[in-house]
Amino acid sequence: MRMAELSRESGVAVATIKYYQREGLLPPGELTSPNQARYGAAHVRRLKLVRALLEIGGLSIAAVREVLAAIDEPGVSTHDVLGVAQHGLPAVRADLGDEDRAWAMKRVEAMAAGRGWELHPESPLTDSLVGVLCALRDVGHEWVLDALDRYAEAADQVAGADIDAVARLGSTEAIVEGAVVGTVLGDALLATLRRLAHAEVSRRRFQNPPPVPRQEDSGR
Amino acid sequence: MRMAELSRESGVAVATIKYYQREGLLPPGELTSPNQARYGAAHVRRLKLVRALLEIGGLSIAAVREVLAAIDEPGVSTHDVLGVAQHGLPAVRADLGDEDRAWAMKRVEAMAAGRGWELHPESPLTDSLVGVLCALRDVGHEWVLDALDRYAEAADQVAGADIDAVARLGSTEAIVEGAVVGTVLGDALLATLRRLAHAEVSRRRFQNPPPVPRQEDSGR
Repeated sequence: MRMAELSRESGVAVATIKYYQREGLLPPGELTSPNQARYGAAHVRRLKLVRALLEIGGLSIAAVREVLAAIDEPGVSTHDVLGVAQHGLPAVRADLGDEDRAWAMKRVEAMAAGRGWELHPESPLTDSLVGVLCALRDVGHEWVLDALDRYAEAADQVAGADIDAVARLGSTEAIVEGAVVGTVLGDALLATLRRLAHAEVSRRRFQNPPPVPRQEDSGR
Repeated sequence: MRMAELSRESGVAVATIKYYQREGLLPPGELTSPNQARYGAAHVRRLKLVRALLEIGGLSIAAVREVLAAIDEPGVSTHDVLGVAQHGLPAVRADLGDEDRAWAMKRVEAMAAGRGWELHPESPLTDSLVGVLCALRDVGHEWVLDALDRYAEAADQVAGADIDAVARLGSTEAIVEGAVVGTVLGDALLATLRRLAHAEVSRRRFQNPPPVPRQEDSGR
């Protein structure tokens, strides 16, 4: 198909497609004449993925480029690609004092030990987690961490479902792409469901004050 | 304290503090002379909160302004404030066809019915969720939704812990601020834990088969 059709098929404006090409996010089409190229279904699919990562995932252009490189790299393992997807995460900027860092690491280690997680203290992920803990402390809301174990349990449960599903995808390319999309869009899914659940729990607990004497407390 | 000390205490640069003041994110200090003001502990606290919402939560200036207005409004209920916090959520832009929307609503309704959630079809949250579902379908990764019920169960579990903790905070101001901070930073916490759990589950499932030949795999 021509550029105009590619734009129609993918729902991405021609100028945006050209921008993505300049940024290396979309491979060139097959040249059919010096100034005309032909595009295929792979281009449509890639364009939709790029748009999803940028618009839904909130990844930077550079992060999208890295993710695409991982997808396109032959023989890359699912385990390694999850690492690349994690790199795309808007990082928690951590400019932490030693005391704060030590305090957070102690809590993270206790949590990991409780769940049987292998912790890599030098990994950017551990750093992110330490940064989030310190941010909570810094704004005076350490109490959120009283539920750290319940958060970790929920995360474990969701991650188990994610990896199960990703492993079923078949081809390496599909697994890799699935890991990235599932990680990024799964965050949006989980965050939105959490807010819906907040509204629900809050309604039950704070808004419905005694409909009648009320037989039992239906909340948890 | 003077502006310079406020900056030191809060870790926010003077120019940034003045910017926040112009944007209505920080109340003026108490004037002690025509061009000098005095600030108190409430200003330090508010500054840290604003920085956390902007830098950690990724909220827009306008969203932060709304959240602060909700915190400062007397007599606002926890239930209502959770709604305001939700408004700060980077929204999923939904430019959806009728067929897509109907498909997503059907899945959302089934999920809500399964969990006993009251669904408000006109709420922005329901819209966000519909948008996320359609985004997954649009990029060809509907399979993520096979785990929708497990995601919702995890969200319910975390939300229950959140509301329990928030309810214990005491004063209305503390509850309201806690709800906002807990919602925003809790997302970062959950997303980071989910990635740690991914790495852990992925390691157990994909990486651990031959633990013998190589002594250790330091890279990732």
